[in-house]
Amino acid sequence: MSPKKRPWSIVLDHAAVATREPEKLKRVLAILGLDDAGSEAVASQGVVTHFLRPAASEPAVEILEVTDPLGVVGKYLDKKGAGIHHLSFMVSDLDALTAELRAQGVRLTYDTAKPGAHRTRVNFIHPESTGGILIEVSEKAL
Amino acid sequence: MSPKKRPWSIVLDHAAVATREPEKLKRVLAILGLDDAGSEAVASQGVVTHFLRPAASEPAVEILEVTDPLGVVGKYLDKKGAGIHHLSFMVSDLDALTAELRAQGVRLTYDTAKPGAHRTRVNFIHPESTGGILIEVSEKAL
Repeated sequence: MSPKKRPWSIVLDHAAVATREPEKLKRVLAILGLDDAGSEAVASQGVVTHFLRPAASEPAVEILEVTDPLGVVGKYLDKKGAGIHHLSFMVSDLDALTAELRAQGVRLTYDTAKPGAHRTRVNFIHPESTGGILIEVSEKAL
Repeated sequence: MSPKKRPWSIVLDHAAVATREPEKLKRVLAILGLDDAGSEAVASQGVVTHFLRPAASEPAVEILEVTDPLGVVGKYLDKKGAGIHHLSFMVSDLDALTAELRAQGVRLTYDTAKPGAHRTRVNFIHPESTGGILIEVSEKAL
């Protein structure tokens, strides 16, 4: 599919960090100049997410604070230690994108998109298809 | 330091991924809609970097392809496996920012900024100060 024919627009929305020391990271990001853009519990991931942005509509850092040690992010921290957990792209047409990914043999985590933080619908591209990293693709929910 | 008094501007410039399968990641990012924005050897890191962006001046994904297995990224892959290696912020005044970080007790990797890819000067905030992730801070070199 050529860029000109692509029926969606896409931007990097945020990078998500899993850490056991969220206050340390918040402090450094505050010195850099990122402002608190709100927190939200995401029960399905066993975390509270904290968004920090340099400015409105700029890409954010999402800090994943584990609330359920047996949730997916808690288990990731046990296994891998603190790190950048995933990259999240916002697209204008998630269903068109995921259909194209599937058509090209790319493995997605969910059969159908699920609710994400900040009133979004999300899916994930499996690390097996990306050379080892987790990529979230999301769309603003109506 | 209050946001209003901060003497630099800052944006997320890119997220850098270390992987042994750069072609796999490039393929998925191309399906998403990110375009090739050039490659560059960075001998000091033992890598060739490949930048992919959704559009000009949008934040990029930087793929770190290891050319020196004994370099810092090669060793990272041996130890941690594929993953998102660092986040990179572009600031308008790197020296002012790093002076402020040092004044607040934040640990930096280099005493003075070093040349980075794409005609930049760069420094790194040590994971010890961030809750476990590596953050690059950079400035366009004159």
